[in-house]
Amino acid sequence: MQYLAVRTALHIASVFAIYLSVAMLIPAVVDLYYGNEDWRVFAFSSFFTGGLALAVSLATRGRAPAISSRFGFLVVNMLWFTACLVGSIPLIASSLELKLADAVFESVSAATATGGTVIVGLDALPPGLLLWRSILQWIGGLGVIALGLFILPFLNVGGVSYFKIESSDIEDRPFDRFSTFAVALVSIYAALTVACGFAYAAAGMTAFDALNHALTTVATAGFSTHDASMGFYADNYAILWVGTFFMFLAALPFSILILFLVRGRLDSLRDPQIRVYGGYVLVFVLTVAIYLRITDERPFLDALTHAAFNFVSIITTTGYATEDYGQWGPFAVAAAFVAMFLGGCSGSTTGGIKAYRFLILFELLANGLRRFVYPNTVLTVRYGDRPVEDDLQRAVVLFMSAFLVIWAVIILMLAATGLDLVTAISAALTGLTNVGPGLGPIIGPAGTFAPLSDAAKWIMALAMLLGRLEILAVLVIFTPVFWGR
Amino acid sequence: MQYLAVRTALHIASVFAIYLSVAMLIPAVVDLYYGNEDWRVFAFSSFFTGGLALAVSLATRGRAPAISSRFGFLVVNMLWFTACLVGSIPLIASSLELKLADAVFESVSAATATGGTVIVGLDALPPGLLLWRSILQWIGGLGVIALGLFILPFLNVGGVSYFKIESSDIEDRPFDRFSTFAVALVSIYAALTVACGFAYAAAGMTAFDALNHALTTVATAGFSTHDASMGFYADNYAILWVGTFFMFLAALPFSILILFLVRGRLDSLRDPQIRVYGGYVLVFVLTVAIYLRITDERPFLDALTHAAFNFVSIITTTGYATEDYGQWGPFAVAAAFVAMFLGGCSGSTTGGIKAYRFLILFELLANGLRRFVYPNTVLTVRYGDRPVEDDLQRAVVLFMSAFLVIWAVIILMLAATGLDLVTAISAALTGLTNVGPGLGPIIGPAGTFAPLSDAAKWIMALAMLLGRLEILAVLVIFTPVFWGR
Repeated sequence: MQYLAVRTALHIASVFAIYLSVAMLIPAVVDLYYGNEDWRVFAFSSFFTGGLALAVSLATRGRAPAISSRFGFLVVNMLWFTACLVGSIPLIASSLELKLADAVFESVSAATATGGTVIVGLDALPPGLLLWRSILQWIGGLGVIALGLFILPFLNVGGVSYFKIESSDIEDRPFDRFSTFAVALVSIYAALTVACGFAYAAAGMTAFDALNHALTTVATAGFSTHDASMGFYADNYAILWVGTFFMFLAALPFSILILFLVRGRLDSLRDPQIRVYGGYVLVFVLTVAIYLRITDERPFLDALTHAAFNFVSIITTTGYATEDYGQWGPFAVAAAFVAMFLGGCSGSTTGGIKAYRFLILFELLANGLRRFVYPNTVLTVRYGDRPVEDDLQRAVVLFMSAFLVIWAVIILMLAATGLDLVTAISAALTGLTNVGPGLGPIIGPAGTFAPLSDAAKWIMALAMLLGRLEILAVLVIFTPVFWGR
Repeated sequence: MQYLAVRTALHIASVFAIYLSVAMLIPAVVDLYYGNEDWRVFAFSSFFTGGLALAVSLATRGRAPAISSRFGFLVVNMLWFTACLVGSIPLIASSLELKLADAVFESVSAATATGGTVIVGLDALPPGLLLWRSILQWIGGLGVIALGLFILPFLNVGGVSYFKIESSDIEDRPFDRFSTFAVALVSIYAALTVACGFAYAAAGMTAFDALNHALTTVATAGFSTHDASMGFYADNYAILWVGTFFMFLAALPFSILILFLVRGRLDSLRDPQIRVYGGYVLVFVLTVAIYLRITDERPFLDALTHAAFNFVSIITTTGYATEDYGQWGPFAVAAAFVAMFLGGCSGSTTGGIKAYRFLILFELLANGLRRFVYPNTVLTVRYGDRPVEDDLQRAVVLFMSAFLVIWAVIILMLAATGLDLVTAISAALTGLTNVGPGLGPIIGPAGTFAPLSDAAKWIMALAMLLGRLEILAVLVIFTPVFWGR
């Protein structure tokens, strides 16, 4: 069974790699169109990856193992590992001549939809490479949604599944079959991207910028085509509000977006995590805007626009910046730090702790305090109007504990490479929550991860991968029981 | 009942205040002996506090309410509030002329056995004031042990009670009655203090210094009689190792120390939290010592002595420093940050998350990962060789969640007063875990809390009090259900 599972997981990963190799032809065509020599890199990478993946997929064909959670974990890990690996190939082969650690960092940051970069000089980069980074993030974002909706909940890692808890429509069966739902998901994701791209273009972006930023906005991923990130458009409020709107939207649960858009059902928006998420977005944006208004004496519209864009960007773990909010004063910096933990809704492209976990934790806390006073009351933890299963409660608690411990370990590892406290703390955090930029002069919104040592970049790649797979789905692979009989 | 509970709690607190007013006569006598005018301050404060407390205690006499957890929480909060309030009276009245915020900060830092100070010029302070600070910490330390052993476990806030889980002696009844146990506890605590004081004196401290440092070492509290803290004795390795030894000892569970010392029973040392605590102390001390040896090229004995003293000081939440470990390089600083979370054992004078919580969290995590692979297995969370009750598991999880949320809130509040990120993050942490010094140039081991604004000092006082009462015991007071019928 062990052998069968590994072989089949390899097979699935190699088929996925074939798809990725086909995707490489898009930047090849774009580079050809713009007359850039790098088209050869993508053509070669595509041919190389495709050939290799085809060989592996043929060699690993055969009987599939029985579906088990173990097999699920293996496939999920293998798929992301493949995306990170394959994604780095054109980066290594390109005219950029990235070192291995840099190429892997960039590729992991892309495939995990994180958004931190090691590349300085984005504005002068060949269009194919820029597009490849954006496409990887877009695919990564789609993967995250699928992970959160279809896979993790059934592995009991948590996430609130569409099928398990999110709606009262389990009885209604709004989609007859899984495939219908999957098609609807991809369509909505693509439609959102197209809408976002047109909105960006209408607000004044070039077509190429609109395409790239649409891909990385809807994936709440955060790669830009400019070193200044969205600061390139800092004076175009229309663009900033388009970005804010679509980032906010992409952090909503996709199953609910589907219900809303396909069926026009407003009641699906009553999911309690949406209220929590909307609530903390509002509080952070308004508080910071008022703080900026008072301390920097900026016009309120300006303060509000930049506070909204940058804090929605942080909370949704996108990672764009319009300016260096590290210079916005102590309260804004601390708010950015705290906002990095938050994340959006489950079943979205965002990382971080996420609204539904906070909701369940607050319920647990409120119940616990009530039980201190009346020790013999039995209280149910509720998510909206239905009780939360024990397994989900446990998963939330496990995630929080693992998150804290892993965060501490990564801080120590990064500090051992010589990074100062603020850089180490915020890098470990921004990696695990897949936000993108950290805090401080090096990796802050005005910096990049380029100055870090190779060791630190490898550690960050690990952190981003751990965070993307909700930590536990990676940790489980390293337990003896996973490989036991 | 509500009225009865508040009145009786007030009565208990006022009787406690009478004891405190008597304790004020000790520094009065010491100041008289040294010929310092401040003896009048203490005599006056004692008279004032004692009279007021007597009046309140007389006015609140009467029928006691039925014992309930609600009443327990009320008493615990009231006792600490009283200690903080009464402790500040001589500080306000003294020749130091402390502002209200400063006096309250210092008093809270004392009564909660935290150890951060706002007083610059300790070396020139009247002996009575120095002794008063130390006595308050010693009483605070004793209170913490009692809280952890007798009170919090029965309120289900957590803590591993001597009676509930710590030993297999529930059947053995090593002490026939509660009062016997309480007397043993106070005796051992006092004996440890005397032993520590003699050891300090033998190693070269003056009698007065030995007394003060013994009081604040055994309470893992951390006030010193020198601005340089234990840096005053930085070259006296004997003193540093005495300090390290007694800090380490005081962070062990006191019930187990009692069993060991009174009965000579070694098996009681097998409590699993001791292994966890000893384990992480060893890892941190050795790693930092080796790091110092390599990066600073200090002689190994020197590196080991200072690493041991300072990291045992942080982990046991004492808060002494021998030098500015903020200058020990990035890894040591990050290690200090992570070490601030840890704490010692339950039923000791330490704060922080504490070893037994980590033990239970790791058990939960390991079980959770096993359940991902085999979803239908039922696994018990074990503490050593006995299962952990659901209530205790829940309390651990609640504490962690509340800790994180309150930490974030306090960071934001401190940052709003203008503190930079490292100061805000580490101040909030060092307050909640009752360590003492923070990190960074202001409140780091070489600094004090004096430069902070009044607002920040009040916030810190709140943080220390919250941390001391394991957060939940304070939060519960602010729930509507607590004051309901």
